[in-house]
Order: sequence, then structure tokens, then C-alpha cells
Amino acid sequence: MRFILLIDTKDEKGLIYKISKVLFEHNVNITNEQEFVDNQNNKFFYRSEISGEDIDIDTLQRELQNTLPLANIKITIKRTKNIIILATKEAHALGDILIKHYSKDLDINIQCVIANRDNLQALVEKFDIPFYYIDADNIDRVEHENKMLQVIAKYNPDFIVLAKFMRILTPNFVEKFPNKIINIHHSFLPAFIGANPYKQAYQRGVKIIGATAHFVNNDLDDGPIIEQDIVRVNHEMSWEEMRNKGRDVEKIVLNRAIKLAIEDRIFVYENKTVIL
Amino acid sequence: MRFILLIDTKDEKGLIYKISKVLFEHNVNITNEQEFVDNQNNKFFYRSEISGEDIDIDTLQRELQNTLPLANIKITIKRTKNIIILATKEAHALGDILIKHYSKDLDINIQCVIANRDNLQALVEKFDIPFYYIDADNIDRVEHENKMLQVIAKYNPDFIVLAKFMRILTPNFVEKFPNKIINIHHSFLPAFIGANPYKQAYQRGVKIIGATAHFVNNDLDDGPIIEQDIVRVNHEMSWEEMRNKGRDVEKIVLNRAIKLAIEDRIFVYENKTVIL
Amino acid sequence: MRFILLIDTKDEKGLIYKISKVLFEHNVNITNEQEFVDNQNNKFFYRSEISGEDIDIDTLQRELQNTLPLANIKITIKRTKNIIILATKEAHALGDILIKHYSKDLDINIQCVIANRDNLQALVEKFDIPFYYIDADNIDRVEHENKMLQVIAKYNPDFIVLAKFMRILTPNFVEKFPNKIINIHHSFLPAFIGANPYKQAYQRGVKIIGATAHFVNNDLDDGPIIEQDIVRVNHEMSWEEMRNKGRDVEKIVLNRAIKLAIEDRIFVYENKTVIL
Amino acid sequence: MRFILLIDTKDEKGLIYKISKVLFEHNVNITNEQEFVDNQNNKFFYRSEISGEDIDIDTLQRELQNTLPLANIKITIKRTKNIIILATKEAHALGDILIKHYSKDLDINIQCVIANRDNLQALVEKFDIPFYYIDADNIDRVEHENKMLQVIAKYNPDFIVLAKFMRILTPNFVEKFPNKIINIHHSFLPAFIGANPYKQAYQRGVKIIGATAHFVNNDLDDGPIIEQDIVRVNHEMSWEEMRNKGRDVEKIVLNRAIKLAIEDRIFVYENKTVIL
Repeated sequence: MRFILLIDTKDEKGLIYKISKVLFEHNVNITNEQEFVDNQNNKFFYRSEISGEDIDIDTLQRELQNTLPLANIKITIKRTKNIIILATKEAHALGDILIKHYSKDLDINIQCVIANRDNLQALVEKFDIPFYYIDADNIDRVEHENKMLQVIAKYNPDFIVLAKFMRILTPNFVEKFPNKIINIHHSFLPAFIGANPYKQAYQRGVKIIGATAHFVNNDLDDGPIIEQDIVRVNHEMSWEEMRNKGRDVEKIVLNRAIKLAIEDRIFVYENKTVIL
Repeated sequence: MRFILLIDTKDEKGLIYKISKVLFEHNVNITNEQEFVDNQNNKFFYRSEISGEDIDIDTLQRELQNTLPLANIKITIKRTKNIIILATKEAHALGDILIKHYSKDLDINIQCVIANRDNLQALVEKFDIPFYYIDADNIDRVEHENKMLQVIAKYNPDFIVLAKFMRILTPNFVEKFPNKIINIHHSFLPAFIGANPYKQAYQRGVKIIGATAHFVNNDLDDGPIIEQDIVRVNHEMSWEEMRNKGRDVEKIVLNRAIKLAIEDRIFVYENKTVIL
Repeated sequence: MRFILLIDTKDEKGLIYKISKVLFEHNVNITNEQEFVDNQNNKFFYRSEISGEDIDIDTLQRELQNTLPLANIKITIKRTKNIIILATKEAHALGDILIKHYSKDLDINIQCVIANRDNLQALVEKFDIPFYYIDADNIDRVEHENKMLQVIAKYNPDFIVLAKFMRILTPNFVEKFPNKIINIHHSFLPAFIGANPYKQAYQRGVKIIGATAHFVNNDLDDGPIIEQDIVRVNHEMSWEEMRNKGRDVEKIVLNRAIKLAIEDRIFVYENKTVIL
Repeated sequence: MRFILLIDTKDEKGLIYKISKVLFEHNVNITNEQEFVDNQNNKFFYRSEISGEDIDIDTLQRELQNTLPLANIKITIKRTKNIIILATKEAHALGDILIKHYSKDLDINIQCVIANRDNLQALVEKFDIPFYYIDADNIDRVEHENKMLQVIAKYNPDFIVLAKFMRILTPNFVEKFPNKIINIHHSFLPAFIGANPYKQAYQRGVKIIGATAHFVNNDLDDGPIIEQDIVRVNHEMSWEEMRNKGRDVEKIVLNRAIKLAIEDRIFVYENKTVIL
């Protein structure tokens, strides 16, 4: 079996020696190993993929913790992650995940799709994935989120992916899933926070537009950034053409962020991400 | 009704005046208009979208031809183009077109998909598009192409899109569709022509990989280039990881090329493209 | 002799016909010609390079104006433009212009460099270009700008280039040079307006940084954007490393903007640029 | 004092443990540390920057070598590297290095510039750097190289940078400086090997051009690639315009490669680079 070992802690001399000593004594194979020291903030981040016959994970965890008493240490089995997708009405970001899931280009298990419009139902059901239409009209935000939470509770996903879910989530919802909700914002954050970023970009006359995948925290579009990319635009393009060209960037950036998340490569620290 | 007017000819003084005079006298609206003069080769390229009540296209065409007797002049109704897709077994490029077609992000009519493997059948039929499995094993190249030509003849498409169709077409097939077959090659041409470009790129140790959409002519991977794009790679990536990262570039480059083709924006000249 | 003809006006039917008729009757050669119609705002932009024996520019101008009474029409001789550079202490953007000027890769005449620090003097004088050190300490903003204006008045430049000039210009200064002051801002505007954008970018944890060249108007970093470009960064980089990597983007974006400006390719409209 | 420790060897279990044990016992500070395992080829690469009071480098080296008897182990003092630049007549790549050197944006010591044309002499001497004009006309290749080798021998540089040196070096010259000669090729290798790559790119009608920095080995343009980057072009551009736009990419890619080299970040393995 394969495991992923994640450690973050205050930096000090000899950390790699101490970690590698415990791993060596347990006779584990290290398939790959990355570390990063933030010298400015004196922080240490470590990720490795380990395997071996008869690894006793509990003992390994305990000995690592004894060696590094102040560290956050997490050992998890390497496995296909469960995902719930929240969407509204646009098909491009959702559709890209559905195709990648179908063709096994992305190692995820899509448990269900929840949307506050019903137009994506036919698309989702083509792929035999449960679709929940939870209308947000005529009910308040809390009631709408509670309905979603009931569905989510049934599945207990590893990550919730907002594939152009065009509603703002309340702190109550968000704090239930720390660093587990991945959003794609259709601009190069922190430019054009909020509604209609393509219109904002058009009006500002920018020459490049972008997309940003980030974890959702309590502040709108202000969570830790996971990945960004851009595409050139020019004065000939209407905002609708910018939006259409931007959609390809959105879906690719979201997909890259999902890939990093499901491989347990993202540490969050001071509202930023360290990606190993 | 809207029309697209395409003109290419030897450059000479006053071409724009002569064209715009005829259009003015016919009282047409010009929605947009682009021209390009290749001063080195003394060639003139012109594209406009025109509309108006009671445009008599035959008369307009005749008068333009009288004014510019040596020019190639083409006036066509602006309409949704018909596409046939040829594929083999990879789902990403095909799937992206299917999703864009489904969500109306790409203004095409997919008439059918033809493949020399059968594993894409289930995906295609989810979208209610006819799928033809034409096996290439145990028959010769000409026989295989003839079977495809019989299917294509039933539909008479505007363009044939090779969405990772992993077979080389013979000159006999290609010359039936001049500048109508769009291929996506999974490298930054002219680097890594031929088979397994990602393996070639891996072995050469490049730091960037790319994809190239081009019209297919008789020479392998040597047709007029329509669009290219790239993505960074590094020493950590195996060739399979390069391939997976490259697939997103492939599908986007192919999609951009299809968009340019269906909008009649591509002139082919001396094995190069002029895009207006 | 070569001339550049610039026209912008309200769009209406037959503009190209009317313009090209006048040009045809004057028997001018059109080397290249670009137009753009902003359908949403009903605006027409036109640029061409024209030449010919015995062109009577005054007559041509008058007849074009008679034909298009409401249009802004400008005909200028194509010539090397005069530039004054304002700098503070960083050498990369200034140095790049100096090298390009020296090697004739950029068709400009640098009249002088004005700086509010003296450390760049030695570099500038290597290239035999007048250097004015105008200290901004211990005098108020108006007095400092007046000293600069006195120098600028001696030269009457076509454009003023701010090559990392780290002071904010007052409206009084700026309004003397409408669409003639080109600034390079070291971020992907409108993200990170104001001071220390690299520190801001570092703190926000972005994965891409950029640079923006824009005309300066009265509002800080809010003028019409001419050109932008970006480069990838990651969690391993300190803000100083981001700055160093960003400097290459800054100088290239600034250089592209200067090139567009000196070729008279930039129209400014509603605080945006149309680039022909 | 600071040292850089480089290790490459066949991969085996416990390498990091063994290395970090020796370092821990020597009580060194590790400022940063990177490793890479090429699982396919079973190779291990390691780089760290170490410091500490009273580090006995000879003992450290010996103990590491005893622990890893089959490894290549190199410990060097971290210091400013000495560079000799070879050029021909183009100023952009050379000029960029001169400015970066002048402004201390690149931590190098330029010992001299050698060129086979004399037009760059004035530029180089502005920066008080020795310039050697060694004409290649009317003498054979070996004689020309011998004259250069005599100059180089006086300086004993860490790296030789070919800043658009437009001559092919013989194996005799090249093999004296293994992985020490850095060339910038003005194309996206392996596309457009050889002469006039911009003309080749123009004729092929590509939509993107690039530049490649690589170590020079015996085969033309076939050495290990260090860095590449690209810029978009289109049908409107002549090959001279492609060249001018490409020059900015050339100089930036060359500069990034120099930076990686002088920081001892490049391992060469099977004609590829591993960059840590």
C-alpha cells in the first residue's frame, strides 16, 4: 500500500535528518519527497510518498510525533478522492471535469453534482452521476445551504469543487470545510474581485485576462490561491468574447487545482499555498 | 441575412477603394472588415461580414468580379458549419468538442464521429451523435479510407476534424478535401514530427511542450499551421505526465482552429495561413 | 516621403469608401492600412501609412475633412520620435532603452534623461545622453515638477517615458502631456495599484506576476493600458526574487509600449486603447 | 562562509538519511535543500546550500564520500562566478548582460568579451570591460579558436557565454569546457536547428517563435537544454519583425540560464538537464 506523509512545523536544524532516520528505521520506500523551508517565516513543509511491506502506520506516526513533538504530521493512504461539484448553469468547467473523469484523465470519484439551476441535469445524467437540483429562489441563504449540506452529509466528500457556482457561501457553510472547497474565479485575482469580472476587465481595457483557483474562506474571492493562468485579449473583443476565451482558461486552471488537491500537494499557510 | 465576403488577389493600388465602392453602391452594411497586404509577395487578402435588405448576391459577386477580374472572390451565407470528426481512442479532444457543441460554446453541427477503435462509441452516443466504428485492422489503407469516404459522402461536411485520429491519410483521401481537414498534432511543429512526440520531447529534455493545429495536405504534419500554443514542463515529469499536461493544450488549440475555420477567417497561401 | 494618416470618428456606412476614394484620387500608395469599428460604441478608428510623389498634405487633409466633417483627422510625417526619459534609481528599464537605442533596435531619439537620484548618471553618460539630476528632497512637489518642466520645455519631446520613475505626477504636470506620458507599472493592473506591488503580490500569494504599460492621466495607475505581460512565480520566491524576475517583464512591456507609441498605433478612447 | 553541496548517484534506499546524518553530525546549517529522484533511470540528484562556523570541508567531503562511495560529490564555496562572453555583432544579448552586470542584477564578474567583429567594442568598453577583437576571416577555424583559447587561458572563467556568437565551435574547443559553454539559440529547439531560424520560422508559417539556452556539446544545437521561452507571432510579421520580437526572448532566456548556471543549479544527465 502507498501512503502520503505530510509534515509542517517550525523550522529547526536537523529536521530532514530526524524524519529520514525514522523512515529509514521503518524500512519504507520513499517514491518521492519534497520539502520547502520558508526562511523568512521559519516554517518547514514536507511531503513524501512512501510504501513498503508491513508498514505499521500507527507506530510510524507515533515515532515521528515523538521525534518532532511540535509538528503537524499526517499519514494517509493514497487513494482516489471523493468530490462533490457545485454548479449553477455554465457547462464548460463542469463538462471538462466530467470528460476527464469519464476518460480517467483525472483520478477522482464524482459523488454527485448539486446545482441551483436545472439546465445541467441532462448533461450530468448522461454520465450516470447523481444530480441534485436545489433551487435558491424564494428561500433564504441559510435554508438553501442547509439543503445542500444535507446532500453533502450523505456523501462525506474529500473536496467540494465550485465549478462556476455563482452564489456566495456563508461563513457557516465555509467553516465546515476548511481548505476543502475549491473555487474557480473568472479573473486574475486580486484584480476584478466580485461580480462580472469579464465586464470589469472589458471596461478597464486590459490586454490580458485570467482565472484563479483558490480555496474558499470567509472573505469573498480572498482565499489562498492555488493556481492561476492567463490569455491575451485585445480591443477587438467584446466582453462576451473575452468570457468565451476565458472559459478555456477557467476550466484548465480549475482542473490543475483539483489535481494538486487530490494528490495532497497543497499546504495552506498565512492565507497562501505552498505546493509540493 | 448575413454574408461573408472573401477576396484574395495580387496587390495593386486602389483595391480597397474599388471594393468599397461596389459595396457602397449596393448599400450593404459592413459589420466588420479586415484586410492584409503581404508586401513581400505582393498579395492582398480581404474579409468582411456584410448584411442588408435585399442584397442580390449574384449581382454583387458579378460586379466585384468585373471590378477585380483577377481576384478570387467568394460570398457565402453566414451559417452554422457541418463537421465530421475522425478519432481513434483518446477522449480529451473529442470530449471537449462534444461539450462545447452541447453547451453551444462552439457554433457547429457535428454530423457524425468516425473512429477506428470502438471505445469512444459510448461517449459519443451520450450526446446523440451518430458514431461509425470503421476498424482499420486486417484491411489495407485504401479500403479503410474508402469505407470512411462512403460515410463522409452521405453528410458532405464543411470541415473534417481529426481529434487525435492516429492514422496517416493517403494523398488520395486528402486531396478530396483541400484546406478542409483540420488536424491537431501533439507537438510544437516543426519540432517532433511523426510518432510519439511526447516521448521525443521527453528524451530531448525540452522545457516547453506544445500543440499545433494545421490543415492536412499530402505531407505528414507539414500542412499550413492555423494555431499553436505551449505549456511549460520540467525534469520532474515523465513523458506520460507531459502527455497529460499537453492534452489540455491540444484540445484548446484544436478548438481555436475550428473556431477560425468555421468563421471563414483562414486564407491559405504558400503553405501558410493568413488569419483575418 | 512617408506619412501616417489617423482618423477616428462616429461610425457610419461607407467610411472606408469615402476615405479610400479621396486617397485614390490623390494617387497615394498605401503601404498598410488598419481599421477597427467598435460596434458597441459606434466608433470608427483608421490608420494607414501612405506615400507618393508630390503628395500635397494640406489639400489631402482638407479634402478628407470635407468628406468626413465630424472626424478627427491627423496626417503626420513618419519620422524618428523624440523621447525624454524620467527615472529614479533602477537601471533595468532605462538600461534596456539605452541599449536598444544604441543598437538601433528602437527607432527613437533620446533627448535626455531626468532623474531624482544621481546614481544613474554614470550609466546615462556612457551613452552620451544629457542627464539632469533634479533632486526632489526638501522641495515641494510643484517646485520639483517645475524644474523638470523647464528642462522638458527645452526639448519639446514627442513622448515622456517613465522608466521606473518612482514619484506621482500632479494633475498640473500630467495635463500638459495628454496621452504622451508612458509609464511602466510593476504589476498586472488593476491588481496591486500603488506602492510596492511585488510585496503586495508576495503577501497575497499569487502564482503569476505582471507588468503594465499605460498612459498617465490624473488618477494613479489608472490610465489607458497599452500593453501587459506576465511571468509565473511560486511559493519558493521571496518578494525580492519576484521583483528581480518581474524586472525583465517590466522592461519588455515598456519597450513594446514605446514601439506602439512611436509608430502612432495607439488611439485612446474612454480610457482604453485601440491599437492598430 | 557558504558552500554549495552537489551530489548525484544511483538511487537507493536511505540516501537522504545518510546525507542528512553526516550534515547533522557536522552541525551545519542547511539554508535550502533540493533533491530529485529519476525513478525511471534510478538516479538521485541533490543540491543544498550549507553554512556554519568552522566547517571542515575536507573532512565533510571525505565522510560523505565514505558514506556514499559511488556518488559524485562536490562541495564548493558560494562565490561570484567569472564569465567570458563570446559575441559577433548583435548587441541585444550582450547589452542585457552588461546592464545586469552593471546594475548588479546578475551576480557575475565579466572578465572579458571576445568577438569576431569589432562593432561591439565601443559598447563593451563603455563598461570598462576588456574587449578582444579576434577576426575569423582569412584564417582557418582551428587558428581562430586557438587565438580565442589563448585569451580564455589568461582568465580561466567558470562559464563561457555565447551571446549570439554566430560561429560553430569545433569539438576540440568544446571538449575543453564540458557543461561550461552556454549558448542562446534563436529558435525553439529542436525546431529550426542551424542557420537563420527566424527565416525558417517565417517560411514555415509558425504562430509562435522561441529561444533556447543550452550547453554546447559536439553536435550543433543539440546540447542539454537549460531554458526555453516563446512569444506569439502572426502572418503580419516579416521575418525581420519576428527577429526583433524574438531578440527580447533570446536575452531573457539566456539571462535565466546564466542565473541557473552561476548558482550551481544544473545537473547534466543523458544530454538533459535536471535543475534544482
